[in-house]
Amino acid sequence: MYNISIIGSGNGGRAFAAYLSKKGYKVNLAFRDKRKIKSIYNYKMVQSEGEISGTFKLNLITNNYKKLVEQADIILLVVPAFAHKEIAARIAPYLHDGQIILLNPGRTWGAIEVYNIIKLKRPFLDIHVGETQTLLLTSRAVKDYGVQVLRIKDSTDFCFYSNYPNYDVYHTINEIFPELNPVYDIRITSLNNIGAMIHPATVVLNSGSIHRKQDFLFYREGVIPHISRIIEEIDKKRCMILDALGVKALSFLRWVEEVYNVRAQDFYEAFQKIPPYATIKAPKMLKKRYLTEDVPTGLVPLWSIAQYLNLPTPTIESIINLTDLLLNTEYKRTGRTVRRIGVPLKLLKPKSPIESVNDTLITIL
Amino acid sequence: MYNISIIGSGNGGRAFAAYLSKKGYKVNLAFRDKRKIKSIYNYKMVQSEGEISGTFKLNLITNNYKKLVEQADIILLVVPAFAHKEIAARIAPYLHDGQIILLNPGRTWGAIEVYNIIKLKRPFLDIHVGETQTLLLTSRAVKDYGVQVLRIKDSTDFCFYSNYPNYDVYHTINEIFPELNPVYDIRITSLNNIGAMIHPATVVLNSGSIHRKQDFLFYREGVIPHISRIIEEIDKKRCMILDALGVKALSFLRWVEEVYNVRAQDFYEAFQKIPPYATIKAPKMLKKRYLTEDVPTGLVPLWSIAQYLNLPTPTIESIINLTDLLLNTEYKRTGRTVRRIGVPLKLLKPKSPIESVNDTLITIL
Repeated sequence: MYNISIIGSGNGGRAFAAYLSKKGYKVNLAFRDKRKIKSIYNYKMVQSEGEISGTFKLNLITNNYKKLVEQADIILLVVPAFAHKEIAARIAPYLHDGQIILLNPGRTWGAIEVYNIIKLKRPFLDIHVGETQTLLLTSRAVKDYGVQVLRIKDSTDFCFYSNYPNYDVYHTINEIFPELNPVYDIRITSLNNIGAMIHPATVVLNSGSIHRKQDFLFYREGVIPHISRIIEEIDKKRCMILDALGVKALSFLRWVEEVYNVRAQDFYEAFQKIPPYATIKAPKMLKKRYLTEDVPTGLVPLWSIAQYLNLPTPTIESIINLTDLLLNTEYKRTGRTVRRIGVPLKLLKPKSPIESVNDTLITIL
Repeated sequence: MYNISIIGSGNGGRAFAAYLSKKGYKVNLAFRDKRKIKSIYNYKMVQSEGEISGTFKLNLITNNYKKLVEQADIILLVVPAFAHKEIAARIAPYLHDGQIILLNPGRTWGAIEVYNIIKLKRPFLDIHVGETQTLLLTSRAVKDYGVQVLRIKDSTDFCFYSNYPNYDVYHTINEIFPELNPVYDIRITSLNNIGAMIHPATVVLNSGSIHRKQDFLFYREGVIPHISRIIEEIDKKRCMILDALGVKALSFLRWVEEVYNVRAQDFYEAFQKIPPYATIKAPKMLKKRYLTEDVPTGLVPLWSIAQYLNLPTPTIESIINLTDLLLNTEYKRTGRTVRRIGVPLKLLKPKSPIESVNDTLITIL
């Protein structure tokens, strides 16, 4: 039976704790702010409702990373992507050979960032770092004692970052999470970061009313037709970048079909039709994950790849520029650029024209 | 007594009609939509209140440009700057030697645009084209019969576009408008376009709530502290461009002092303190002059100069890019770029390093 440590005790971390404890694994949970998980801490139990229902025991709940990391076979990071860097540095000293780290999700280049930080500190460590494309469990934290699991997605891609796939590691993850779907190109999990297509543009172009705390439904009313055109342009550029790299892109409209089973003619219609969007309200301040996570770990890496490929992405760059001014940040410099992450250049090699010709030939034949 | 034709019968056009008729000039007024000026048309009179008060006769009110232009000594254009181009082309056939055209205001490069369009069609015509830096008369149209003149500004710059100043022309204008202040560098009237610093950014970053028709005071509530930083950045870049050209810039904060007699520590404070801003409401749709005029005839020319000078202006470019997507326009291409207007390159010559050194020397001596 695996010993699994979960770092992050918000919506996702609690849901994973319930999911794994229910399956009988030894579950350890790390927290940052004890007040927020007081009952979970006191009773060493997570109460879950929804798709997973019951009260589930924890093996350990602590903010002692040493204890948490040393005993774990598998470590799940369930935190905002902007925290991956810091957590990687904090856990690095306690890791040992053969451990598996899975980011839920990695956003763009999460696994590479964590892997490179650990390897810089522990060059000889035999570690496996992977990421999921999105959060497997749609969930909401309930007060200081539990979680509501709204949905267990039926197919979420995951991938480990390495030169050659280690099938044992994939097998272990699928043994624990049969719903996860293995893929063998980290660009598939990293570059289909749909949230980054939608959230920053919508917040920036609604920044006045968000700061004024005017009520509106984030997607249904926030994505006015004009803004949907901006989101469309951003997603089009992402697909163009993926295409230039020879990676099959999952377009936003296709994603809407796959995830929500909604067919839409255009972006605006999609936002009007996706059922859960009917109740999601706008945030009441600008400094929230829609910007603080999705810009540095979503739009910035995309823009940086485009720079590398010499593809102009004026709209993506505009949203980054304005975010940096709105929040007084420097995401364009501090975000996940190709250089800062150390993305191997072979992952950024443009599909050669010869390859394209071959593709065509094969299609014709 | 001069015969003066006014093209444009909105707020400004009506105010000029009252101002000039009161002084005894023969005033002709052109209109576009008869319904909007029905009483003015029927009675051939403009009723004015406020700083100019009374009922004032018109010599002619017509939509016949031929009649209007042929008899005029002076032609005032009092229309949105995006209409200058079309009007220049329409009046060109009827112009004769020695006439004076004054744009109120020109926004950026208005006089050059009009001059070049006319000269292209009538190369041998001896015509004088000038522009004011802002509208001399702050005014509001009143129904279909009149106008309220809120303020006659006490010092508004004007300039004629020519290689050497024709002092007779300046004299004629000052005879009619003693409040106008002659300057002899068209860049002073063209590149201190403050509206373009403020309006587009505020609309773009409030575009969601404007489209949703949520009520807010445009300046007081629309320019949240975060957005004031974006406006500050845009204005800083404008001043940098002017500085690179060796033209003294009027910064926004300085302008606020001069025009409103308000001293502010920062941009946000300025927007909170300027008295008339206390009541100005946000527009209820995006396709309004704050974007349709200020982007193509304010931000685009500035961005284009910066391109020419090789100065990066990412924030200005971001606002242009997003406007083009929001409105489905191509202002970046169709707006007043250096190339499209035909701005003489001598107006864009960077201040030479030698000149700067001399400046320093002089300061030291």
